[in-house]
Amino acid sequence: MVENEDRNPVTIIGLGPMGQALATAFLKNGHPTTLWNRSTGKADDLVRQGAVLADMIADAITASPLVIICVLDYNAVQSILEPVGDVLRGRVLVNLTTGSPEQSRRTAAWAAEFGIDYLDGVIMTLPTTIGTSASAFLYSGPELVYEAVHPSLMSLDGNATYLGADPGRAAAHDMALLDFLWASMSGYVHALALAGAENIAAREFAVYAREFVANIPDIMTQIANQVDEGSYPGDLSNIISAEAGMGHIIHASEHHGIDVSFLSSVRTFAQQAIDKGYGTDSFARVTTLLRKPQA
Amino acid sequence: MVENEDRNPVTIIGLGPMGQALATAFLKNGHPTTLWNRSTGKADDLVRQGAVLADMIADAITASPLVIICVLDYNAVQSILEPVGDVLRGRVLVNLTTGSPEQSRRTAAWAAEFGIDYLDGVIMTLPTTIGTSASAFLYSGPELVYEAVHPSLMSLDGNATYLGADPGRAAAHDMALLDFLWASMSGYVHALALAGAENIAAREFAVYAREFVANIPDIMTQIANQVDEGSYPGDLSNIISAEAGMGHIIHASEHHGIDVSFLSSVRTFAQQAIDKGYGTDSFARVTTLLRKPQA
Repeated sequence: MVENEDRNPVTIIGLGPMGQALATAFLKNGHPTTLWNRSTGKADDLVRQGAVLADMIADAITASPLVIICVLDYNAVQSILEPVGDVLRGRVLVNLTTGSPEQSRRTAAWAAEFGIDYLDGVIMTLPTTIGTSASAFLYSGPELVYEAVHPSLMSLDGNATYLGADPGRAAAHDMALLDFLWASMSGYVHALALAGAENIAAREFAVYAREFVANIPDIMTQIANQVDEGSYPGDLSNIISAEAGMGHIIHASEHHGIDVSFLSSVRTFAQQAIDKGYGTDSFARVTTLLRKPQA
Repeated sequence: MVENEDRNPVTIIGLGPMGQALATAFLKNGHPTTLWNRSTGKADDLVRQGAVLADMIADAITASPLVIICVLDYNAVQSILEPVGDVLRGRVLVNLTTGSPEQSRRTAAWAAEFGIDYLDGVIMTLPTTIGTSASAFLYSGPELVYEAVHPSLMSLDGNATYLGADPGRAAAHDMALLDFLWASMSGYVHALALAGAENIAAREFAVYAREFVANIPDIMTQIANQVDEGSYPGDLSNIISAEAGMGHIIHASEHHGIDVSFLSSVRTFAQQAIDKGYGTDSFARVTTLLRKPQA
């Protein structure tokens, strides 16, 4: 550790894989770093690197003007912070815990009551990227608070983006990203089951799947453009051919005794789109059908 | 077009977006190129670039020792080629049509009856990549046939991989890749619906979603390693936390009146995994649960 007089003290609450990665990055960049975690064993390595482990949460908070919390969920945030709202008064609280936009907004409202400067953030990359340029963060909350802590957050090295004053905005992006992630991962484990039934080893399939992923960003942009323009030309690929393609995958899966519940529910949606007369539109049209008309 | 005496004549059957892209790449590389399509209008541009449009499928086939077919599905392959099996005798037929491994194997068996050298292939990238180094192809079938046509296939420029003698192997990879693709795209349109309900424009979300996709290849390798090793350590992320995360996304979606059928069926699977005692394993464990025990 290179301790640096210019670096602000930082307190990290929560030492899961992400909290540990955050603390490591702050330590490496010379920030006096104080830790608090419900169980203490996880801090040993970090203490060897120069961190201070506080026994009491109040001591951890008073050690730094910037307090970062990254724990399992907002229930944990609430049970840890509610008793110490007064201790946090006048400090900056950056909450990197995963949750819903509503939870972020409620926490921001709670923080405002106690005069805590609150910034909500999400981490878009794996713990292994923290402290490298591959990491990526989204933040939302008051712009002045973001500007104030930006120099310290830069010690995390990655790509930081400020999304605006609504404290729920980073969480809204995160929730949508995780929505995409879980669907993708479900498709991937299903694809591995299908490949396995064809005697293709998972590692062999992964080689081509990794390459295949390179197609996805451009498809994402194409779909997003269509959604924002409200126009869904299906000249390159349409819902009828998508539905037929899904039918083949379902058929092949059933042939091998592989569960098809996930893809079947997607196919049902595609069928409904066709029934509604959208068969020759692109798959992007489905976006408009997912939201039920308000009663 | 630079016509080149060294380049073998090629015939392309099917002029959808992919067939047109293939023909363009062969023409650019100096191959005498003959075309056939059920409807003729699509060939006009290619004919201006030097291609010959055959009226009769038999004339298209006799024009080249290498015939490439890329049409809507295997029903189309069958109805186009069955009447001309004898004309194809002694030629190489490369089939780039999307289908199941079984359909590829049946087509290979049909080709063998007629003394046709058959290679099955899949295109892993979008039509816009054809003729650039970003394109990627997988082939399977007799190695000698692959070696014979490899120089001509190199005019497509991309990354070509030979997967072995089983003619169904390229299709098996393709089907698993498309399984992943449709799940991902379903997740993406759902994420756009959720982002839209939070007043995030699709194009704004797409910027971060594109970055987020960069996480996926490493996750794919990690899951594949676990599946091949039959060991599913959940120390970084486990099924219990995945199931809880999905629950939050479902809750937020329902709050906005967005259909949750896709993610609910994935969550049900995660719940079953937890009920079976796999909650602290990684999500990769789900691969083993998708294949039903044989009765």
